Amino acid sequence: MLQSYLPATAIVALPQPYLLFLGDTTEASYAKTAFGLRDWAPKLCLGEYACGGATVTTGLPALSPAKAYAMGARGLVIGVANSGGFIPDAWIPSLLDALEAGLDLISGMHTRLTDVLALKAAATRLGRRLIDVRQPPARIPIATGRKRSGKKLLTVGTDCALGKKYTALALARAFKGRELAADFRATGQTGILIAGGGIAIDAVVADFAAGAAEMLSPDAAADHWDVIEGQGSLSHPAYAGVSLALLHGSQPDVIVICHEPGREFVVGHPTFKLPSLEETIDLALRLGRRTNSAIRCAGVSLNTSRLDAAAAERLMTKESERLNLAVADPIRGGDAFERLVDACVT
Amino acid sequence: MLQSYLPATAIVALPQPYLLFLGDTTEASYAKTAFGLRDWAPKLCLGEYACGGATVTTGLPALSPAKAYAMGARGLVIGVANSGGFIPDAWIPSLLDALEAGLDLISGMHTRLTDVLALKAAATRLGRRLIDVRQPPARIPIATGRKRSGKKLLTVGTDCALGKKYTALALARAFKGRELAADFRATGQTGILIAGGGIAIDAVVADFAAGAAEMLSPDAAADHWDVIEGQGSLSHPAYAGVSLALLHGSQPDVIVICHEPGREFVVGHPTFKLPSLEETIDLALRLGRRTNSAIRCAGVSLNTSRLDAAAAERLMTKESERLNLAVADPIRGGDAFERLVDACVT
Repeated sequence: MLQSYLPATAIVALPQPYLLFLGDTTEASYAKTAFGLRDWAPKLCLGEYACGGATVTTGLPALSPAKAYAMGARGLVIGVANSGGFIPDAWIPSLLDALEAGLDLISGMHTRLTDVLALKAAATRLGRRLIDVRQPPARIPIATGRKRSGKKLLTVGTDCALGKKYTALALARAFKGRELAADFRATGQTGILIAGGGIAIDAVVADFAAGAAEMLSPDAAADHWDVIEGQGSLSHPAYAGVSLALLHGSQPDVIVICHEPGREFVVGHPTFKLPSLEETIDLALRLGRRTNSAIRCAGVSLNTSRLDAAAAERLMTKESERLNLAVADPIRGGDAFERLVDACVT
Repeated sequence: MLQSYLPATAIVALPQPYLLFLGDTTEASYAKTAFGLRDWAPKLCLGEYACGGATVTTGLPALSPAKAYAMGARGLVIGVANSGGFIPDAWIPSLLDALEAGLDLISGMHTRLTDVLALKAAATRLGRRLIDVRQPPARIPIATGRKRSGKKLLTVGTDCALGKKYTALALARAFKGRELAADFRATGQTGILIAGGGIAIDAVVADFAAGAAEMLSPDAAADHWDVIEGQGSLSHPAYAGVSLALLHGSQPDVIVICHEPGREFVVGHPTFKLPSLEETIDLALRLGRRTNSAIRCAGVSLNTSRLDAAAAERLMTKESERLNLAVADPIRGGDAFERLVDACVT
């Protein structure tokens, strides 16, 4: 195992507000990052910008980079992915226009912006930054396990991609709505763009992953909430190690379990049955107790987007009675969600 | 979470046999790597080589790099560490001599050999390799969870640094002594030097750590044993994520728990009590079942180096009765160790 390095300097802070770049995208599902930013960070998003051929829109005003810069924009966010995770040649002229107009480029893609020679040359010439939010900060320390001040909440999933980020965002927003001090703490690329900072925990070298989680939710006022975006699942055959490092480093006082009703198998791993909610709660509490003996489960967040309102309501009521816990869908909100918030903050 | 990359090409294979470099070391504890290689890979170690001022010796013949090369050596292994983990200037002339003599350089230190300009220039000029065994291979895939053929054994610790590597080496040697097909699979730098290959699992990006473990113990003949070196501990506040990724990716049929009697707290984390053997077994089996439902614990390896022979014997007998498991110290060997080997292979 590695020895401790020097203390980390800072978590990435992004140039804002943003102009959202949609490339030449014709598939709405590829524009999840742009939609997430529009929904969760509307004040940061001045408008959108696309290449010829794009049919997807966020509904925000279409702006040229020069116009957006004049309105105050400082970063162009690549708000779309493509299936290969790379930056196609068709996007390059638009990205160069943004650099010329005064905007830094921000990407959460696998390809690093700095690996695209034309972008690197232009950024160097113009004094712009190319920011890859998947790139962890330098000098992350080894986790110490020292108990930090302030309250921490972590969203914990039965699987990947079922609402851990949205649940954390919705809880942080609800906490603030109740005049509580709260920060959403981002652990993945879209979350980092929304929060304007954070650490892509899955991109950290394994020995430092728990240390990165400790960095992400530092000492705070006793009544301040860090609402931390979960990653993966403790029962995931590929990513459980990431999830455990995040759980140990976050030291949550409260966990909220995130699940999509009807999902039976781990996405991409069809021979692995999804763990039950009870098993997920029990395992997360057992493991989480190692760094916070007071850890408790406040309730369950269900992603009911595939159900109609009545079916969703029935399911949430049934699950709440079965588990004797608050159960809500943060996207639907309502009384059920208020009860989940109550259960978190009491 | 990241998507799968292309299949990995190969695990590092090291140039052998070795000349062991001792630097200017006067502290035997800094030469653990050299001693480990002498003890566990004697056929690979032709001799030792030191700078002026060194007082530590492995007892192997002192050889100049030129003489070692003439005898067949192909790699100079830096067999010592210093407290800063860097390569001091005093070593450079000796390392340059080795490159001139025809040897590649192999290091498990934090400082990369390629970051030392004088070494890099000489290696480039002479066509030699500078091999940093902590550096993981490129293109490690995301773990699939697919069950692989062949038998896998993983050593699992109650903490760091209490005998997981030595236990795995001793078991692999004992399996071979019983005419069983077996490979020691190294997951840390000293183990990699001994095995001549492997992956430093703690240096892999977190998302790929379980995938690295899958690479390390590939499909094999049904009666072949991969004996995998454990890392960290599932209860370690900094490294549990690494340990869980290794457990899930290794898919062990058999685990052997490694412990040092008398150790009460996690090394370097004095507020964290060590988990009991029962808790360690129970947690490892519960988590390990996720990728291998047939996982079982064959027994316990105790590092009794601080006890005299009679006290060690008494303790092993007592623990074996208490846990109803084979309990042995592989360094002491004897009947107890044979019973532990029996319990692994039955």
